[in-house]
Amino acid sequence: MIVIGIDPGLARMGYGVIETERGVPPRPLCHGCIETSARDLSHPERLLAVYTEVDRLLEQYQPSHLALEKLFFSRNISSAMAVSEVRGIVLLAAAQRRIPVTEYTPNQVKQAITGSGRADKRQVQEMIRRLLRLGEIPRPDDAADALSIALCHIHIMR
Amino acid sequence: MIVIGIDPGLARMGYGVIETERGVPPRPLCHGCIETSARDLSHPERLLAVYTEVDRLLEQYQPSHLALEKLFFSRNISSAMAVSEVRGIVLLAAAQRRIPVTEYTPNQVKQAITGSGRADKRQVQEMIRRLLRLGEIPRPDDAADALSIALCHIHIMR
Repeated sequence: MIVIGIDPGLARMGYGVIETERGVPPRPLCHGCIETSARDLSHPERLLAVYTEVDRLLEQYQPSHLALEKLFFSRNISSAMAVSEVRGIVLLAAAQRRIPVTEYTPNQVKQAITGSGRADKRQVQEMIRRLLRLGEIPRPDDAADALSIALCHIHIMR
Repeated sequence: MIVIGIDPGLARMGYGVIETERGVPPRPLCHGCIETSARDLSHPERLLAVYTEVDRLLEQYQPSHLALEKLFFSRNISSAMAVSEVRGIVLLAAAQRRIPVTEYTPNQVKQAITGSGRADKRQVQEMIRRLLRLGEIPRPDDAADALSIALCHIHIMR
């Protein structure tokens, strides 16, 4: 099973792809961050850039599942609306390839990775490093978050 | 110039296409409503259905401009987030075809159509009927709203 985790955002969107098989530790295939800037692109062009990159990742890794961070009530409504636009695009890209999507709240992710919904960011990142047998904590934070969302889905599926 | 106006929504999305030339009254080419239901489709499938219909309209009418209702602060944040996901998809479909997008607030639309930002829905609809020389007020309301957004753009461009 190949799972892509996505931490949606317009300026920075983290992604992480993990392969998992019975009896073998999960193997990270790639992780990174899609960045777009209002300096270089119009708002619709930024959304198109994100879509193009997500679609390229889905084409390259052919994930069987997409795990997405669920957006919570945010005090900053204009930021929540921008993230929702990106979420719409990610959901569209998945639906076009008939890839099932599951959404997880940040607390569900922390709980699945560390056993506690109150773990801090650093603890989650350190567990990700260990579980994926990486030499260092994945960078940037958005990519580490995306790997933790993918790994959360793998743990919950088991 | 062909302008498509869109009043975004997941359950119901209004659209209206208007052609305009110098010295000739604006001519409505089509209007209607894209509807999706949570009874029949998953959330990503609904977004895909909306995208497919929008893309088909852009292909069929080849608009030179897309006018979109700007989302305001909404008390119902989960509804604002769902509409934002649809907005993301509409902006993507436009960007893929390099169609420029302009956004208008409901008050800007009312002002442009009736001369008053405080006009009620019925007054706006009646002006739309007159300006587009239609026998009746366009139905449903979402389609009338979309026509008013397209016509607002045409008035502001003049």
